[in-house]
Parts: sequence; C-alpha cells; structure tokens
Amino acid sequence: MKNTFGQSLSVTLFGESHGPYIGAVLDGLAPGMDIDEDFIKHQLLLRRPSGRISTSRVEQDEYILASGVFNGKTTGTPLSILIPNTVQRSSDYENRPRIARPGHADYTASVKYHGYEDFRGGGHFSGRITAAIVAAGAIVIPALRKKNIMIGTHIKSCGGIKDRDFIDYQDDIKKLSDTDFPVLDDTKAFQIRQMMESVAKEGDSVGGVLETVVTGMCAGVGEPWFETVEGRLSYAMYSIPAIKGVQFGDAFDMVDKKGSEYNDSFCISGDHVETRTNHNGGINGGITNGMPIIFRCAVKPTPSIYKEQDSIDLKTKEEVKLKIEGRHDPAIIHRARIVVDSMTALTLYDMLAQRYGTDFFFGE
Amino acid sequence: MKNTFGQSLSVTLFGESHGPYIGAVLDGLAPGMDIDEDFIKHQLLLRRPSGRISTSRVEQDEYILASGVFNGKTTGTPLSILIPNTVQRSSDYENRPRIARPGHADYTASVKYHGYEDFRGGGHFSGRITAAIVAAGAIVIPALRKKNIMIGTHIKSCGGIKDRDFIDYQDDIKKLSDTDFPVLDDTKAFQIRQMMESVAKEGDSVGGVLETVVTGMCAGVGEPWFETVEGRLSYAMYSIPAIKGVQFGDAFDMVDKKGSEYNDSFCISGDHVETRTNHNGGINGGITNGMPIIFRCAVKPTPSIYKEQDSIDLKTKEEVKLKIEGRHDPAIIHRARIVVDSMTALTLYDMLAQRYGTDFFFGE
Amino acid sequence: MKNTFGQSLSVTLFGESHGPYIGAVLDGLAPGMDIDEDFIKHQLLLRRPSGRISTSRVEQDEYILASGVFNGKTTGTPLSILIPNTVQRSSDYENRPRIARPGHADYTASVKYHGYEDFRGGGHFSGRITAAIVAAGAIVIPALRKKNIMIGTHIKSCGGIKDRDFIDYQDDIKKLSDTDFPVLDDTKAFQIRQMMESVAKEGDSVGGVLETVVTGMCAGVGEPWFETVEGRLSYAMYSIPAIKGVQFGDAFDMVDKKGSEYNDSFCISGDHVETRTNHNGGINGGITNGMPIIFRCAVKPTPSIYKEQDSIDLKTKEEVKLKIEGRHDPAIIHRARIVVDSMTALTLYDMLAQRYGTDFFFGE
Amino acid sequence: MKNTFGQSLSVTLFGESHGPYIGAVLDGLAPGMDIDEDFIKHQLLLRRPSGRISTSRVEQDEYILASGVFNGKTTGTPLSILIPNTVQRSSDYENRPRIARPGHADYTASVKYHGYEDFRGGGHFSGRITAAIVAAGAIVIPALRKKNIMIGTHIKSCGGIKDRDFIDYQDDIKKLSDTDFPVLDDTKAFQIRQMMESVAKEGDSVGGVLETVVTGMCAGVGEPWFETVEGRLSYAMYSIPAIKGVQFGDAFDMVDKKGSEYNDSFCISGDHVETRTNHNGGINGGITNGMPIIFRCAVKPTPSIYKEQDSIDLKTKEEVKLKIEGRHDPAIIHRARIVVDSMTALTLYDMLAQRYGTDFFFGE
Repeated sequence: MKNTFGQSLSVTLFGESHGPYIGAVLDGLAPGMDIDEDFIKHQLLLRRPSGRISTSRVEQDEYILASGVFNGKTTGTPLSILIPNTVQRSSDYENRPRIARPGHADYTASVKYHGYEDFRGGGHFSGRITAAIVAAGAIVIPALRKKNIMIGTHIKSCGGIKDRDFIDYQDDIKKLSDTDFPVLDDTKAFQIRQMMESVAKEGDSVGGVLETVVTGMCAGVGEPWFETVEGRLSYAMYSIPAIKGVQFGDAFDMVDKKGSEYNDSFCISGDHVETRTNHNGGINGGITNGMPIIFRCAVKPTPSIYKEQDSIDLKTKEEVKLKIEGRHDPAIIHRARIVVDSMTALTLYDMLAQRYGTDFFFGE
Repeated sequence: MKNTFGQSLSVTLFGESHGPYIGAVLDGLAPGMDIDEDFIKHQLLLRRPSGRISTSRVEQDEYILASGVFNGKTTGTPLSILIPNTVQRSSDYENRPRIARPGHADYTASVKYHGYEDFRGGGHFSGRITAAIVAAGAIVIPALRKKNIMIGTHIKSCGGIKDRDFIDYQDDIKKLSDTDFPVLDDTKAFQIRQMMESVAKEGDSVGGVLETVVTGMCAGVGEPWFETVEGRLSYAMYSIPAIKGVQFGDAFDMVDKKGSEYNDSFCISGDHVETRTNHNGGINGGITNGMPIIFRCAVKPTPSIYKEQDSIDLKTKEEVKLKIEGRHDPAIIHRARIVVDSMTALTLYDMLAQRYGTDFFFGE
Repeated sequence: MKNTFGQSLSVTLFGESHGPYIGAVLDGLAPGMDIDEDFIKHQLLLRRPSGRISTSRVEQDEYILASGVFNGKTTGTPLSILIPNTVQRSSDYENRPRIARPGHADYTASVKYHGYEDFRGGGHFSGRITAAIVAAGAIVIPALRKKNIMIGTHIKSCGGIKDRDFIDYQDDIKKLSDTDFPVLDDTKAFQIRQMMESVAKEGDSVGGVLETVVTGMCAGVGEPWFETVEGRLSYAMYSIPAIKGVQFGDAFDMVDKKGSEYNDSFCISGDHVETRTNHNGGINGGITNGMPIIFRCAVKPTPSIYKEQDSIDLKTKEEVKLKIEGRHDPAIIHRARIVVDSMTALTLYDMLAQRYGTDFFFGE
Repeated sequence: MKNTFGQSLSVTLFGESHGPYIGAVLDGLAPGMDIDEDFIKHQLLLRRPSGRISTSRVEQDEYILASGVFNGKTTGTPLSILIPNTVQRSSDYENRPRIARPGHADYTASVKYHGYEDFRGGGHFSGRITAAIVAAGAIVIPALRKKNIMIGTHIKSCGGIKDRDFIDYQDDIKKLSDTDFPVLDDTKAFQIRQMMESVAKEGDSVGGVLETVVTGMCAGVGEPWFETVEGRLSYAMYSIPAIKGVQFGDAFDMVDKKGSEYNDSFCISGDHVETRTNHNGGINGGITNGMPIIFRCAVKPTPSIYKEQDSIDLKTKEEVKLKIEGRHDPAIIHRARIVVDSMTALTLYDMLAQRYGTDFFFGE
C-alpha cells in the first residue's frame, strides 16, 4: 500500500494541487453513522488559510460525498469525498524552469517519478491534499466522540513562544475545537500571531511543536510487535508535510531523568486503574493503558520562503539561485493541527474497529 | 497484521521470555544471498547483556536456521530463525502475586489478553524477543552492505552525558560495528559506563538518545501518503521496548529556527545532487534524497528499577507496594542500538525490494 | 482491506448504482505510462449494454480522470477515475416494499449493513460498478501489451451452445478485442444471440462459461503459499457478480483422468522451455511456467428474471411474491468478459510489479 | 505478503521437506482458547499417509508449540508450531541430475529462485508442508465448533466413482471427522480404495473432486469488492497442491440452467430467513446468507507417477527421459481433504474476527 493506510478502516488519498479534484475514499466505516455536513465544513474551515499569516490562495473547499452515504448516514460501503480544485493559477507555475525548492519534495519527486509528476503547485505533495484528510477525519470524529473519545491539539510552542500546558482536558479540547488559531493562552496566541506576521514580512517562515491529547481511549488497544499505538500514530503523523519528529509522553524532554522519575506508578481511582503521572503518554508496551494519549509533533519551518536560496534546475542539473514568488504560508503549524487531529481520529477508528469489529461504531 | 511487518520482505516475530523458543520468519528474501553465521553470532553478541551494567541472566543465544537456507545461501522461501530459551528461572516469577510493574506492559497486557498472557519475565513483551530481531537483521545487513548501504547507531546522550557528533560516517560506523558499547568518544564512553554503574547501585535506571545514520541510500525511495520513509522507520522503531520518541534530522532540536535556516539548499557535487546541510535527515516529502538518513530515538529509562514503587495487584485490583528483585538492566540503551540497526535494515530492505523488485538483493 | 485489492498496484472501488459517481483509484502505477483515452472508451463500450439482449438503461459512461495523469501520461501518483451516474430512474426503486431479489445481494447486504445500505438498483452491489473496473483495466492493459502480454476471453459455452476452442491465440484475442459479442465461431455467436433473445421473451435468463487466455507471461511469477497465481486470479474473478466457479487449465473437466494423462511433459522449443500440453493452465506450484495461462469462469444465470418468485419482505420479514419489473439483462456473460479481462490485467500488473519493481512498466 | 495470509488472524508458513523443521505462526488468535492436543494429533493423523495407497515415508508428525500457549490455553500472542522433519532420506534426491518432474513445481521454482531453492523432496513446495497447515487448523477448529460452525469435506468423486450426496450435514460431518478415508458411502469408499490400489500398481495416479460443507455460519460476513467469501476461500484452496478448480454451489454443474432454476428463493423458517434451494452455496454478492457454505475443489491427479515421462534437465536445459522412483502417493485426495478443512477454518476464523473483533473467539 502506498496512498492507502489502515486495515479495518482504510483511507485512500488521491489528487494533485492543480488537477480537477483531490479526494479520499474511506472503506470500512460502520453503517448507520450520522454524517454531519456542518461539522465537515467547520473542520475544513479550520484548515483553510486565512488572514495575513496564510497564503492568499483561498479555495472554497466545496466537497462532494460521491458514494457511501444514503439518507444522511453511512451505508457501510466505501465513502468517497471529492473536493474540486477551483482556484488554480497554473500560470504561476508553468513555463518556468523547474527549480527544486529546498525543503520541498520537488527533487525527490522528480527522481522517484522520473520527471513525469504533476509538479504544479507541488502536485500530489501539496499541503492542499490535506483538505481531503480533514474531510475524511470529519466523517469519523463524531463517531469517536459518541464513544467519548475526544481529540485536541494545540501549538505547544512556536518560534520560541510557549503556550500554557493543558489544564482541563475537556474544556481545553472544547476551546481548541472552536478556534482557527489553536493556542490555549490568549496572550500567547496574540504573541505568536504577531511573531508570524513579523516573520512573514522578512519573507521567512517558522515551525514549532504541536501537542495532542486524546481522552477516553479504553485500555488494551495496540499490539506489542509491531502494530504499537505509537508506531501507528507516528506513521500517520509523518504523512503530514513538515512533521519531522513525533514523541509520546515526555520522551526527548525527560530523557535525562531516571527510571524512578519516569515510571508512572499505578493506583486505583474509583473502580478503575490509573497512573499517578503520565510520562508514558497513555501507552505501555505499545498498548493503551486508559490514560490520555499524549504526543507531540515537531513541525519544521515551512520550506516556502521568499528569501533567495541556492538550488538546482531539475532539467539542466545546474546550480541556480531560487527566489520563490506566488502564494505561500509563512507558518502552517496552526493549520496543520486539524490535520493532526484528523489523522489521529482515522488511525484510532481503525485500531478500535480492528479490535472490536467493524460494527463497533455502528450508528444505532 | 500484528506481529508481522513489511510487504515485499515481511518479518513475523513470535515467542515469550520463558517459553521454549523465540523466533522470527523472514519472507520475501531474495534467493542466493550469503548467510554469514559469524556475523549473526557477532550481532547477537552485541545485544547480549554483559558486565555490571546488564542483567545477570545471560542466554547463549544459540540459534537454528530452521528453513529458507540451503548450502549456505538463502533459497528465497521463508527463512525462519529459532532461538531456544535455555536459562529460564521461572521460580523468580511464579507463585507470586501479579503486581503490575510501572512503565512495563504488565497491566496493558492483562487488559488486552484478559489475563491469559504468559506473564513470566514479561512474556511476549520481554526485551528478550529482540534477540530474534537482531538475528533477522543479521540476515539482511550484509545484503545492504553489498549495495553500499551502511547503518550505524551511537548513544548520542545518556544521563546528561553527550557523545561527540559523527565526523566521518564510514569510519564511525565501522567503529560502532565492532564495539558492544556504542559511544564514539572513548572518554565519554568511560563516563557513561561509570554513570550507569553508579545508577545501578542506587537501584535506579537511565535512558538517553540514540542517533542513527544510514549512508548509501539512493534517492527516490518512499511514498508521499502514507508510506513515507519517516513513517516506516518510526513505525519500526516504536516496536523496540523503551523507545518513546523518534525524529528525523533536526526536528525538535531546531524547531525554533526559521525556514531560511532549516531548508537544505541543493548543490551539484561531481555528477550528483546533494544538499549543503542535512537538517531534513535525508528525506524530503517522505522520499529519500540521497543524503544520509539521520534519525534519533528517545530511549526512556529502563522501567525495571529496584526502588519501591506504588502499584496494583492485577488479580485483586488493590493498591500494593512493589519492590522488584531478580535480574534486570539498569540501562538498555547500549543494547537497544543493535536492535535499532536491525529494524532499520529490515525496513529499508523491504522498501528497496518493493521499489526495485524481489530480486534486487539477488545474490549472484 | 475490503474494497481495495493488490499490493504493488492497488485498486480501490467505490460507488453505488444510483449515487452521483462510481469510481476507482489505482495506486502504484509506474510513471510515464501512456493514457489511451480512445482505448478507455472502447473498453467501456464493450461492457455497455446494447440491443435486445441487454437492459434498456444505457449510461453514457463518461469518465473523468481526476488525478494521476499529466500531459497524457501517468504521473506515478494515484490515478482516480470518476464515472458519473446520469441515467438514474430512482422512481423505479423507491417507495416500494423492499423485497429481496433471489440470487441477488439484497438480503445479505441488509444483514451486513443493518438496512443502511443504498439499495436502489442494487447499490454498491450493482453490475454498474464494473464500469469502473473496466476503466481501470483500460489503464493497464496497454502497458501489459507493450510487454507482449495479451489477454482474451470468449464465451466457451452458453445455454448449452459451445463456442469453438482457441486456435491461434493471437488472432483469436485480436478478434475478441474488437467485438462486443465475444464468441469465436460466428455461427455459434448467432445461435447464442438467438437463444438469449428467446430466453428474454420468457422473462428468464441464462449463464455460461467464460474462457480466458493470457499469452506472453514470463515464467517465475507467483508464490507457493499463499500468493499463488491461481489464488490471486480467482480472488479477483469472484469479485465479478455472477461468477461462482473458476478453474485453471482442465481441472474439473479432466478430473477423472490419470496423472500420466494430466501431467504436462516438458520439452525444449528453440531456446526456451515449454510443455507439450497445457492441462495445468500455465501454472505449476502456484507459479507461472511461461505457457499461456488458461482459466474458465462459471457465470451463473443472471438473477434478475421477470418470472414470479418466492421471497421475503426485508422490513416485515414476511414471505411475499416478487415480480421484478424495470430494466434488466437476460444475460450478462457477454458483458462480463471485459470485466474478466480487466480484473486479470489489474492482477497480473500487480504481480509483475511486486516481482520486478514499481518501475517495471515505466513508460519511457 | 507471500507465505502469510489473513488479516485479523494471519498464518505464516515456513519450511522445506528436508530441512530441520516445518512450521506455522498464527497471529491474532483470541486469548483463552483451549488447546486440545489430542485433537491436533488426531488431525495430523488424518493427513498422514497410511497403507498401500500412500507413500511409504511416514513422519511421526511430532510437533512443538513453541509460543503463544500458556497453561493449556492461547495467550493471544503469536502461536507458533514447529514440526521436525525426522525421516529424511536425502540420498533419494541428491547427487542426481535435476530433472523437472512434470506437473510439479521443480521447473517454475528453479526459474523463480534462480536455482537456489532447496529442491530435495520438492522443498518448500512439498505436500509435507501441509502438515503445518493441518496443525494450525487444529488450533482454530475447536473455537469454530464452539460457535456451532462445523466443517466437513468428502470425496465427491474419484476416478469416475461418485460418493453419495450429503444427507444430514451434522451426522455426515461427524462421520467424516472420524475417518481417514472421507467417503460417505461405505461401498463407494471400498470401490475407490480398490481403484486407487489398482492405479498404484500401474505406476499411475488419480485425482477427483472434494466437496466441502460449512454449517452454522451466520449471515452478513464477506465484502462485495473484493473480499468476497468465494474469493477468500478459493484463494486459500489454491494454496493446496493439486487443487486446480474451485466452485461455490452448483456453478459449473448448473451453468446451462436458467435463472428461474438457479435462483434460490427465500422463505421464513421459524424466526429466520432461509433459501429453499442452495445453488449459490450459501453466498450472495460475496456475503454469507446463513445457509450452509458449499464448495467443490478439483484435485488433479498426483503428478508423481512411476511411468516414464518426457522432461528436461534443469541444469543442462536438455531434453531427457524421467522415471521417478522413491516414495510417492498414487492419490492424495483423501489426505488433501483435511488440508481443505484446515484452510477453510483458518479463513473463516479470520473473516469472523475481522467482522466481530479479535475477542470474538475469546475463550471464557
């Protein structure tokens, strides 16, 4: 499998930035799940660029549910989502030398596809494709919520500015669900926005760290070798452009501590087992332990910058200078978080359906 | 798939710490590959505990090649490796209350398997199982080397002590291949050993960061969505007990830098394309770019410590105090690195065979 | 995987008879393959119903290549095909009691999907969906032909009338490629058509046997356990509605013979190995032997008949009489053959790309 | 995947006829399932050659459960089975020219594996490997029986002699479970044995048709495209050496009938839905309908015959005469049936666990 992931629920992604459609096929959904079209639109809106800190190309992100939905509910057969590309300014890209943009996939794609790739706007590697992931995620997130599984992601840090930690998971997740700039502390949100705008003026870009929490996952999901929860989620995260690091719990941040500090001791809370701390991020031996799953993703600075860079011409294989123009994001971390939420939801849906059967999310 | 990974080459792992055998099946190997039994023994030796900083249980790690080898070469049919468990001191574990060891999989396994798991010595979750991974890796590493693909891992940091950076990849990898304590700087190696012994005396444990480099990978391997090189390798790494974080290139370490600093600009070196820096760890858009693949793994402190901890009795579901006795490692990071090398080799073999066909490593 | 098959090349199918689109995603195509739009139309035409022996619903089978094609060639990224449903007469199906049509999937679908399936026109189970398979096949068949792999299927027998055997594979395959009624002997073709029309008048239906030959496959493709060529092809065939039996070579037809009669003895022909007979259908031990692959599919009589039948109401679970009206095929065997060719092509493309790498069909 | 099949339950097979071990790994078993060692031995006994109609090589088929079993029950982790090869008369095979046996995989294996395959006794292609399948099947058959799913296979016909049809499925399956010569009619059993012995004297061999029934499968299991029950079962069957045809229900046998004769009309029996006839073999649209699953496999005559045959020398590529000596079966159909039962059980276990979750067969 290449552009398909998942076993009980599998997601297939297709499309290029400047082709007629991008889309996704979700196969393995339970029948009878409610399709919440307002929610799909809401999620797409959270991914959509807006304001001075995003590209000025704004797609309407209309979508078509081309199959798998009947009378407002899933049928259980493959649900396909089509998103037309309507605002294509191909003249921005064509009839120019093909210069590899540093940090992008231009060069690697040209090697892999021998130059036959649709390179316009990054083609199949464009962040645009994540719109289909977000729409796909919006199909399964309501089903997870019905099972009390809540997912939320905030900007843990950006350009050296740190957001506050999660305090109350439920309240914080709710807050994050409603905002297109996912920072928990409003003052820090303001500072980060300002910093992004300032970086934009320099023609440069920034990255940061996203922190995700999943509450409500039952214990006992995952496999020791090799289908660990960490392995599955990190596999999913690395599909998201610009994510270059993933850690579960405190990992890199507590790597110099001792076992006596890192171990999460067990206790009984009411009628169920908990851990007193959660340095392991809700996962032991690759399997959920019932505590919140917590992970962080390193998002590298957006590679599209306006400063002159050294590069090569892909056709002539000569060194050239590159100065990117057109529409680009000085930061994508705030938009990436909804893609993180969506990939997380799709992965967990799959793992739960593998364990508990395809009817686990059956809608009645 | 649960205990199987890979597509063109698939690896299936089985066994428990105190059962008769652990083992692995490698399916999809090219025919005619040389089996180097000395190398298998050498690799197993690098994983084996030794000295004061490791458990006193020392298995001989004898192994049987039960199928797939004929006249000293692979046949192309499934190669199975059996490793008998010979030094089982089950009395250490049986007839005792089953208390969940914090940081271990005892609790999550008991939820997942409803108490039917073989819990002796961690059972299927035991680090012991990695011996089979190392033996499996030792089958494919020579084939990768014939293609000039070299893999090396050192302890980047441990307990706050940092090793030097790679200087000359080939020399450093060679050095690492021959030592059972993979630290590049000899002084730092001595300091880390001393620190480990001191921690052992406290009954505590340490973790650290492993850094891996792969040289010689051609450009153009990997898939954008979802079969990225990062996704595949991190998926593999998370199978290794105690690994809780993985990053490619500089990721978390350079997350506060700007795009102009993070981007790796392209240049022409002789007749091929290179990047001037390698912050992206040899991967753009999920696809290799021909530069060395570099990644780091966060290894949490070994959860087996001798200090008293709070925990629960898995049968009675009551809170109890736990004081672990028996044989355990105060640090496993130096032993884990050969497992990292092996999982890396198995993953890359698979990705290359998927792209170039099952005969890519054909031995003639 | 449910509605996806294949590994190196994977095909994902979606859509319902009365939804907005049906379609397929092909992932794993080599880059640079020529897209022959005339050939796609030609193949769709061979599947399309026509004349008195087919349903009077005639879709135009317009299609959209929504991704994966650039400048008339494959890009190597997922190629998606959308086929709009334009002639939907939903009033034929809605506001009626839901009576399970015998021989159809109405009942099994209602159990599997708990009544949430889109039942109109058979929904996801409709033969209509095979249009997407045929379009998908039309992407890869030209690539196979460039490698001298030719596929042809004729009606071996129908309603007791037998076609002649293959005489010259190349000539016969060519003849079959150009006709929408795939019978080699023209007299028999006429008789079968007449018989079908006569059966249509009775409101009944007929089935038959399709025989497929594949020439030009190299020896050495397939796996003994479990990925046999027979296993892969039969798996593919059983996806085609109405196919209930598959055999390779002479199988059921020579089951009473002895080993000395069934064995295909080897000989040398020029510089390569052949077998004197081909009772094994080009496959030994699950692996191609270089002889033509020959297999036959039993196509049951089309279940849609106009005679009154006993059945049940899916909602009330009461016994009722069913008299089907609307548009249906008295025979689909002549239309099914192009679906057989297409599934064969997609399966063999996948097996070859697995063995020889994703660039095996690279277009340059 | 090559030598692994299944998703929720996956089975990996390894070993060669003359290597130290053959074996299987079952991954995805529910925990807490009873292991019935007597039953494993019983099943192995039904596969074992015996008497004048079988090869005189008789392995004891000792087996080792090397992992995944604890206190007589499955743990839920991979269960591995090792079967030592004890009676190897390699001198029968070595130091001789390598002549391809017609009907065997000798030639195709030598092409696929470039001559590196372990050819002794057929190596990985030997019927011997099916012992591991039978042992694997013996792990899951008791779990299916607990769910009232019963599987039985008889020799429908052999050498022109036909067994009677099933009369009472439960009684007949019980009878078949206890005999090593699976013919329902005792007179026919005697005739078939006599015929086999007579064929053996000629140095020839016979094949036949096996008919399998599965009772107790619930409705609603299977997927329309492409994971049909027919596709999954036939894929499994074609792994069994000598099986060259598979059909579900009446297929080839009723191909000349009309839809009005072939359709299985629905009725209500007590509180559940049935069909009056079962020409479709319990499957509609690829999905079980709750009726018994019925399928037939064409078993070609055993290719090992003692008559002189034309063949080629695999090393010199010259035509030679072949006269096989050594130990071989004049008929394997009676031994193949327990392999059919086992592959059926493993496939259905997987499909049920995919649909209802990995705990569906949980043992408590």
